[in-house]
Amino acid sequence: MTFTQKLRSAVASSGSTLCVGLDPNLSLLPKSVKRDLLDPESQVSFFCKSVIDHTQDFCAAYKPNLAFFEALGASGLEIFEEVVHHIPDDKIIIADAKRGDISTTAEHYKKTFYNQFNVDAVTLNPLMGFETLDAFTEDDTKGIYVLALTSNPGADDFLKKPFEGFDMMAQYIASELEKRSNSSKAHLGMVIGATQAELSKSVTDLHKKGSLLIPGIGAQGGSIEELATSLNEHEGIPLINSSRGIIYAGSDHENWTEHVAHKAKEMKEKLNIITKRYV
Amino acid sequence: MTFTQKLRSAVASSGSTLCVGLDPNLSLLPKSVKRDLLDPESQVSFFCKSVIDHTQDFCAAYKPNLAFFEALGASGLEIFEEVVHHIPDDKIIIADAKRGDISTTAEHYKKTFYNQFNVDAVTLNPLMGFETLDAFTEDDTKGIYVLALTSNPGADDFLKKPFEGFDMMAQYIASELEKRSNSSKAHLGMVIGATQAELSKSVTDLHKKGSLLIPGIGAQGGSIEELATSLNEHEGIPLINSSRGIIYAGSDHENWTEHVAHKAKEMKEKLNIITKRYV
Repeated sequence: MTFTQKLRSAVASSGSTLCVGLDPNLSLLPKSVKRDLLDPESQVSFFCKSVIDHTQDFCAAYKPNLAFFEALGASGLEIFEEVVHHIPDDKIIIADAKRGDISTTAEHYKKTFYNQFNVDAVTLNPLMGFETLDAFTEDDTKGIYVLALTSNPGADDFLKKPFEGFDMMAQYIASELEKRSNSSKAHLGMVIGATQAELSKSVTDLHKKGSLLIPGIGAQGGSIEELATSLNEHEGIPLINSSRGIIYAGSDHENWTEHVAHKAKEMKEKLNIITKRYV
Repeated sequence: MTFTQKLRSAVASSGSTLCVGLDPNLSLLPKSVKRDLLDPESQVSFFCKSVIDHTQDFCAAYKPNLAFFEALGASGLEIFEEVVHHIPDDKIIIADAKRGDISTTAEHYKKTFYNQFNVDAVTLNPLMGFETLDAFTEDDTKGIYVLALTSNPGADDFLKKPFEGFDMMAQYIASELEKRSNSSKAHLGMVIGATQAELSKSVTDLHKKGSLLIPGIGAQGGSIEELATSLNEHEGIPLINSSRGIIYAGSDHENWTEHVAHKAKEMKEKLNIITKRYV
């Protein structure tokens, strides 16, 4: 099954375009998890697995963020492996790693994510040039999400500035991905922030078939209605990510997993206006 | 001791500006290492420690590249920790990770490199904006090397193109680092490729006091004489990195460590034309 087939199937079978971001921040974990489990590794492992157990009915994908696992040191990568293994086979797993490097270094990052951890997709940073993607493009069961337009204030420094005859560097990135999409076996998707719908449309229009990973809904406050409008004519399948807004929803409560499940269900329903096009 | 004090001292005490890049690629390891040790973890650990033992008289710094350790999975980070621990205290240790992310994600990468692994410096990718550096700037015992002008062909796609009124995006990055250098406790350095000296001078001139991490000498073929000229008026201390050219110098030989030591010594001597300004 190719990446885009798996993606389509994951969205159809869950009836959801929600991606749950797994950012296990020790200082935000549920009080009961911290009380009942002694060491950080056990807390993070139990927390992530519980989140997966209670959200899998409502999402198509999970996006574990490497930073939060690596911060535990070597044992953190063991937990990452365990957590990835705990995600049901029919969900898309995106390693949020934002790696960007050349030749054998990129080859080794590919080994890490494709062979060691066997995720479906990775996020990549193209600053060192589009050759940084090459190592990741040889396998049609994989997808890559290239940083194009992010939703943070720092997007003003590079991604939103004019570049190469485009109004925004993000458009240049999208158009270069479009050029490369036929020669890549892996699917070339984009990370597109949800905060300004019109801005993002001018980017996604340049790579119409690119699947999208969209952060910025939820805690960052992007509007789902505006997003739905901007995606109206887009052909690639979007995954809309929420991390903090879901996974810490019950942190002050004993029955925290119920709050997490409730928030995921709520977000799934809010996204129906978008999801209905793909199911 | 601040980062720049430690850097100056490391260069002065070794009489060298050489940085040895630790890129343990399983397919290039010495034949005798592969014959005598069964598992990849032991091979990588023994290889890196042997390289350190036989090059420490000739270099000021080591740059272990995370990709090659992560490719071994969770156990790879244990080896990374062991290898970093094996590096003498008076050497600069740069984790080549090229991370670039925002807010709590960046905070967690900082925890990984500063707290868990306790390296002196990291390489960072600024594409998501200069806010991605913030988490790393609060500690004056640390340095960061920001990607500015790399030596790979892909540098043509972004870093060598006009941006923000500069002839090259690399110059914009340098000038932004210069602006931020007074408000940062950590030292803000740059990664500058050695392949085209005149090009690199136009970048380093904009951040005169920035320490430099310079790849592209050795296997990539940059000229040391041209580099020396271009650094003539630069005030920041350069570390000139060689990876493959040194660490695999003896891979076909039983006495491979002697070849490694010889290559490191030879490179140290070639760099004297640059080093003599800092000792």
